[in-house]
Amino acid sequence: MRKVAVQTESKSYDVWIEAGCLHKLLPMLKSWKKQPTSIFIITDSTVAELYLDRVKNQLKDHYPLVEAVVPAGEASKSFVEFEQLLTVALENGLDRDSMIIALGGGVVGDIAGFVAATYMRGIRFVQIPTTLLAHDSSVGGKVAINHRLGKNMIGAFHQPEMVIYDPELLVSLPEQEWRSGFAEAFKHGLIQVPEFYQWLQEKIDSFVDLDVSLLEQLLERSIAVKAEIVAEDEKEAGVRAHLNLGHTLGHAIETQLGYGKMTHGEAVALGIIFAMRLSEQLYQVKLPINEFKQWLRQLGYDTNLPKTLQAESLLATMKKDKKVNAGIIRMVLMKEVGSVQVEEVDEKEILTLIEKMLGE
Amino acid sequence: MRKVAVQTESKSYDVWIEAGCLHKLLPMLKSWKKQPTSIFIITDSTVAELYLDRVKNQLKDHYPLVEAVVPAGEASKSFVEFEQLLTVALENGLDRDSMIIALGGGVVGDIAGFVAATYMRGIRFVQIPTTLLAHDSSVGGKVAINHRLGKNMIGAFHQPEMVIYDPELLVSLPEQEWRSGFAEAFKHGLIQVPEFYQWLQEKIDSFVDLDVSLLEQLLERSIAVKAEIVAEDEKEAGVRAHLNLGHTLGHAIETQLGYGKMTHGEAVALGIIFAMRLSEQLYQVKLPINEFKQWLRQLGYDTNLPKTLQAESLLATMKKDKKVNAGIIRMVLMKEVGSVQVEEVDEKEILTLIEKMLGE
Ligand SMILES: NC(=O)c1ccc[n+]([C@@H]2O[C@H](COP(=O)([O-])OP(=O)(O)OC[C@H]3O[C@@H](n4cnc5c(N)ncnc54)[C@H](O)[C@@H]3O)[C@@H](O)[C@H]2O)c1
Ligand SMILES: NC(=O)c1ccc[n+]([C@@H]2O[C@H](COP(=O)([O-])OP(=O)(O)OC[C@H]3O[C@@H](n4cnc5c(N)ncnc54)[C@H](O)[C@@H]3O)[C@@H](O)[C@H]2O)c1
Ligand SMILES: [Zn+2]
Ligand SMILES: [Zn+2]
Repeated sequence: MRKVAVQTESKSYDVWIEAGCLHKLLPMLKSWKKQPTSIFIITDSTVAELYLDRVKNQLKDHYPLVEAVVPAGEASKSFVEFEQLLTVALENGLDRDSMIIALGGGVVGDIAGFVAATYMRGIRFVQIPTTLLAHDSSVGGKVAINHRLGKNMIGAFHQPEMVIYDPELLVSLPEQEWRSGFAEAFKHGLIQVPEFYQWLQEKIDSFVDLDVSLLEQLLERSIAVKAEIVAEDEKEAGVRAHLNLGHTLGHAIETQLGYGKMTHGEAVALGIIFAMRLSEQLYQVKLPINEFKQWLRQLGYDTNLPKTLQAESLLATMKKDKKVNAGIIRMVLMKEVGSVQVEEVDEKEILTLIEKMLGE
Repeated sequence: MRKVAVQTESKSYDVWIEAGCLHKLLPMLKSWKKQPTSIFIITDSTVAELYLDRVKNQLKDHYPLVEAVVPAGEASKSFVEFEQLLTVALENGLDRDSMIIALGGGVVGDIAGFVAATYMRGIRFVQIPTTLLAHDSSVGGKVAINHRLGKNMIGAFHQPEMVIYDPELLVSLPEQEWRSGFAEAFKHGLIQVPEFYQWLQEKIDSFVDLDVSLLEQLLERSIAVKAEIVAEDEKEAGVRAHLNLGHTLGHAIETQLGYGKMTHGEAVALGIIFAMRLSEQLYQVKLPINEFKQWLRQLGYDTNLPKTLQAESLLATMKKDKKVNAGIIRMVLMKEVGSVQVEEVDEKEILTLIEKMLGE
């Protein structure tokens, strides 16, 4: 089986990647020395219909099972759901040796992971990602819920015990969710591995009927980039910040549009275009922006900022980002494909470029 | 200044102990390399009246300050207060380099610490304990809030940057709060340092006008015991469990009476008597229980179980303890003063002894 080992200061674990590997969940759990006393499966309403039974059927004769289904969508990363899931855990007598399975995309991974991080000060959890985007969230141990004043504002670092990534579960993904996850893949190429970026450009020109072995390779390579960065910098003190390429504006776009109007990766793609243009100005370099935009359009991404957005509001939102301190905006900028760094950027430059792009 | 160094896998920090040392807060903060961008002081309504101004006056010309006062008492370790404090933090633009001060007893330390643990996935915090019991909670990094289904059920491990322990702040403590904190001190002697237990018995026969240098010594020695145990076992996999001496029944008593009817330490003292009696039965040893009870009574502790309690309900509550797994109760039992170990105890033995003690 393909696997990527994730090594952090606090823990090491493996991300297993193979078509059909969900069937290996039970034997893999059975190989644990400290067996879970019970298993709490957390999933969302869409994924529950598609895959919950497969997981339950495998486990039900072997472990006491508890399940909870949150409504599909970002709104479930809330205090209310968080408290509710903890209540289910307590009502069902989960103990410190119980274990949580996060079956779903990044939303389920984040909230189930935060429940695992805080239940009795931390219990084990396993991720079974069902979206492409979750290849990003399954590495690094970041877990969180949202606050009305900001996304992912409340959270922790809590590494899973293992990740079981079965690409066959992705066949049911809607197209915009492919785009959402794919943005993190080309981001990984752009910040660190130009050759991977080239490979993606060559191999992927549509998400329809994606070859499963291609998808396995994509996952393995993209996860490996993230794993390498996280290994260097679990707590986001340095190089991990590079992963924020496209995210400063991307998050602001998501916030300003209201969650759900555009997927995360689609917003990040716009944020990357913005970061590349700003980089051209500030570093006086030439980046392959047009070629990039053309590829994106072929894949169905919108490469223009939505006209309903306002530059001033976007800027104000960017200034509330977790990475901002003392009011100074730091962005990841690009010297060339594969080489980025964090820069403090003058807000006037940001404002001017957003206005320009809104006018195009 | 007296100080105890606390070393854990994840961090090292110092607990400073000296009458009047609150005045050194500012210079100590100023010596930090990475200065806080702002400081969020969290305290409770009682402590706010007594000491909040002292802290604010020292800091206000040096750092942007934000403050929040929760109602005094255990009920503040709730989801509602937790969310509210995070909202205050966000509304006031706290960033990742902001810092939280927990000014108060264990309640403030626990909730402020949990806010610090989860705000933007963790920011720094400093403890300024104002109760004797907080000498226990200030070492080990356990932070938590309560759930209606159990105390401290939701939390994290998050070590403070430093602890500034000014015994002069304790003069205003009501007598039962002295008893509450003192129980953790003699517990530390009983589990590991017989000589410290003897010293406490010789020196402390009343909490009225306690000599401040005696108090400093008590704090230093008791904190040192806890620090040593935590250093060995940050995540409570082994020897740290010894700290639960008296707590299995103690917690159940608190839950059954309803929080606030009896202080934590007063309940723990009863739990220790219970554990000692059970130990005599199970290990066939003789422990100095009578002498211990006599000393406790002199200090104003009740040494009989409150008659309103019921054995069956206590047992049921004990079985919901975080330390229980697969329904088996584990208790810390004592072979002799200074030597304890964790044992699985048959619930029938527990029930019988509780019933006996309720009848005395
Ligand atoms: N922790 C991290 O490091 C990290 C990194 C990136 C993103 N995130 C978080 O991840 C979240 C976004 O993740 P996401 O895009 O996976 O969102 P998601 O979990 O909401 O999934 C997107 C949609 O696809 C549906 N879905 C999931 N799997 C499906 C499948 N196999 N077939 C059909 N539909 C399916 C879901 O029900 C949902 O409606 C955000 O909250 C973001 O903050 C976290
Ligand atoms: N984190 C840990 O490792 C740990 C360890 C032990 C206990 N705890 C927690 O600590 C809490 C109990 O701590 P506590 O006993 O300090 O409770 P507390 O913080 O509620 O303080 C007790 C009472 O004394 C008042 N008070 C505080 N300082 C005062 C002062 N200087 N003068 C006068 N009044 C003062 C408070 O307002 C409160 O009413 C519990 O919630 C328990 O779970 C945590
Ligand atoms: Zn992202
Ligand atoms: Zn205690």
